[in-house]
Amino acid sequence: MMIVKIGGGAAINLKGIVADLADLTTPFLIVHGANALRDQLAGRLGQPKKVITSVSGYSSVFSDEAALDLMMMAYAGLRNKRIVELCHQHGVNAVGLSGLDGKLVQGQRNPGVRVKEGGKLHLVRDFSGKPQSVNTHLLDLLLNNGYIPVISVPIIDETNVAINSDNDDVINVIQQHVRAKMILQLIEAPGFLENPDDPDSVVANITKLELAAREEQVAGRMKRKMLALRKLFDAGAQTVIMSDGRVEHPIKDALNGKGTRIA
Amino acid sequence: MMIVKIGGGAAINLKGIVADLADLTTPFLIVHGANALRDQLAGRLGQPKKVITSVSGYSSVFSDEAALDLMMMAYAGLRNKRIVELCHQHGVNAVGLSGLDGKLVQGQRNPGVRVKEGGKLHLVRDFSGKPQSVNTHLLDLLLNNGYIPVISVPIIDETNVAINSDNDDVINVIQQHVRAKMILQLIEAPGFLENPDDPDSVVANITKLELAAREEQVAGRMKRKMLALRKLFDAGAQTVIMSDGRVEHPIKDALNGKGTRIA
Repeated sequence: MMIVKIGGGAAINLKGIVADLADLTTPFLIVHGANALRDQLAGRLGQPKKVITSVSGYSSVFSDEAALDLMMMAYAGLRNKRIVELCHQHGVNAVGLSGLDGKLVQGQRNPGVRVKEGGKLHLVRDFSGKPQSVNTHLLDLLLNNGYIPVISVPIIDETNVAINSDNDDVINVIQQHVRAKMILQLIEAPGFLENPDDPDSVVANITKLELAAREEQVAGRMKRKMLALRKLFDAGAQTVIMSDGRVEHPIKDALNGKGTRIA
Repeated sequence: MMIVKIGGGAAINLKGIVADLADLTTPFLIVHGANALRDQLAGRLGQPKKVITSVSGYSSVFSDEAALDLMMMAYAGLRNKRIVELCHQHGVNAVGLSGLDGKLVQGQRNPGVRVKEGGKLHLVRDFSGKPQSVNTHLLDLLLNNGYIPVISVPIIDETNVAINSDNDDVINVIQQHVRAKMILQLIEAPGFLENPDDPDSVVANITKLELAAREEQVAGRMKRKMLALRKLFDAGAQTVIMSDGRVEHPIKDALNGKGTRIA
């Protein structure tokens, strides 16, 4: 089993990825993002991201109902269905699912953030949270019957409300069940870079044991990615490849040694 | 088996429908629209419907790629996932699917329309067509394993391209396989009206044999609906109820004799 994570960047070569997938002999499933599409749609709709700052000074994105609507349109709607369409054009028998469908990805909603408003303390709670488990029955039912799940956020919380969640965390709970030997992450970079400003500084190999040190080395999204990778290995991953999703043959290149192999 | 068609009007009471569904003892599946949502989104995005006029003077909606994107966002994305979420909140184990997923609803793309442009004849072809068949394997797999399909357009054509299609036609090909005894159509009207301007003129019963005459009586969308109904009976339907989707208990009311019963 292989998990293929398709990044949500604007430059990701979906056609190239799906064409490569059609030639795979290993069973696989797809988890995809759509952040560029979501941001573009938010811009067109005049619906900017809301950010709140907690009393402790920590800023975070606030996913209100409109943000979830947007997520359903961009992730579970447009991006998911265009990937599914591409898959069928290449003979890949895809079924697109959000975490809501059959409660495929179940999570726990975040408890809320304390904010100060007009001198008063409020607890504000958005629609976001952490995945906890997957509907293994539905996942196995599809996989064992020749269907390739194409999975996106949102997921469903403990009271059956749609919530936003991080894709790396979604992959983590899926991995706990499917125990994929290989996880491919197709991103908008050639791999893990020794120097973030130098695309030629790809680190070809990282060992599991080095991950904590690499996490210290980087900042922002890549730092979160490193932490997510550590959790993936805790969940039984044997190999993770972070590789360029923008090239002509993203998956063939990754399997032929391009990108960063973590094992 | 019961097929529940949820209209895409803005006033349809989704919560009431889903709450009623949770109390049903018959197995069922859902096919839904989202036209009000689609139109609203199109307005916000400044993306009006395109209409073309053929050389023979016939006007029709032209579904270009952007129109299909919109359909994926509004139907397969936002509306489908909010219905699925509502279902789980009421204990209905819903899985949302477009006709693309697992090629659930396969159709044939329309051949195109001849238009005159700058004095020259062109054949213009949009992304629309007629459903021909369903993936009975996937539909049965879900139904036999405790999942309730929640189905929306787009569907997939003979070359695996996403196309728009009429929901009544979609229901027709589903009915050819599932042979539902009862088909519930929840619309923004109290039923079939003797006088379209008088909501109190609901015709309580129509026989199959009367359908052709009723088709002559009406115009526009309702005329198309009457034709679709005739096809449903050809496909083995025993009872179709057209009833008000805007009331507190749309399904309970329909089953208790409100609306128009065609049998």
